Amino acid sequence: MNWADLDSGHCSIARAADIVGDRWTLLILRDVSRGIRRFDELSAHLGIARNILSARLGALVANGVLERMPYAEEGRRPHQEYVMTPRGAELLPVLLALIAWGDRHLSEEPPVRAVHNGCGHEVRLVPTCTAGHALTGGGEVQIVPGPGARRVDRE
Amino acid sequence: MNWADLDSGHCSIARAADIVGDRWTLLILRDVSRGIRRFDELSAHLGIARNILSARLGALVANGVLERMPYAEEGRRPHQEYVMTPRGAELLPVLLALIAWGDRHLSEEPPVRAVHNGCGHEVRLVPTCTAGHALTGGGEVQIVPGPGARRVDRE
Repeated sequence: MNWADLDSGHCSIARAADIVGDRWTLLILRDVSRGIRRFDELSAHLGIARNILSARLGALVANGVLERMPYAEEGRRPHQEYVMTPRGAELLPVLLALIAWGDRHLSEEPPVRAVHNGCGHEVRLVPTCTAGHALTGGGEVQIVPGPGARRVDRE
Repeated sequence: MNWADLDSGHCSIARAADIVGDRWTLLILRDVSRGIRRFDELSAHLGIARNILSARLGALVANGVLERMPYAEEGRRPHQEYVMTPRGAELLPVLLALIAWGDRHLSEEPPVRAVHNGCGHEVRLVPTCTAGHALTGGGEVQIVPGPGARRVDRE
């Protein structure tokens, strides 16, 4: 089996990267998951051009990662907020993995911490196999083709 | 504490996203980690324009994620290969998190599987707190400012 013979796009990494493999998109997801949910707030916090923010939010809504919710508050004009869908909330491990790598290699002191709501202790992603072994390093993980793999069509 | 008052760029997610928050970059890391290591092989497998591949590889080398290794094989012209540095290899959880999300939401059957070298069972990222609790859902994780957080300079 040679990886080069497998279709590059027929892959969960490629499909996920089509949706979240973009710097602004990752920062939007970070902000929305922390409660920065209005267009104007996102635009101000991220320093992103409004047309780019609009395009990224539209794509995230179209892909079922965010949804627009009408929001009414006394004394203010009704507006919309962006909230994570359940599918979007399941991207948390992607953000946690980026935090862990950025903390380790790009930051002196952790700018953010992920903690367990229940007890306040730090949360880490531990690669664990379904036989129950907690793995200690990347060398123990092997990526292999799955049942959904497809060969490149070289015609 | 309001997240909107914290500097958006002073953040491990932002710093990590500056380096890997790009669709092509994620696919390059996927391929290199699977042993597709030569420029021509990457170009053919990904179907990426050569100038874009060259720019992405150059940035990954500059950021210490990949390195170029001279490679000599009998009967072939000496060439270079791209290999993961130890820092690059530590991006594995980012790829595993994308695989898990893509498998769950974007693929019918898993195109790739991550398995434990030792026993062949599937590997999952389990969010675990340092007090030893394995968390069952994203709702149990809270992201809070860390010691390295910095307020926005609004001057």
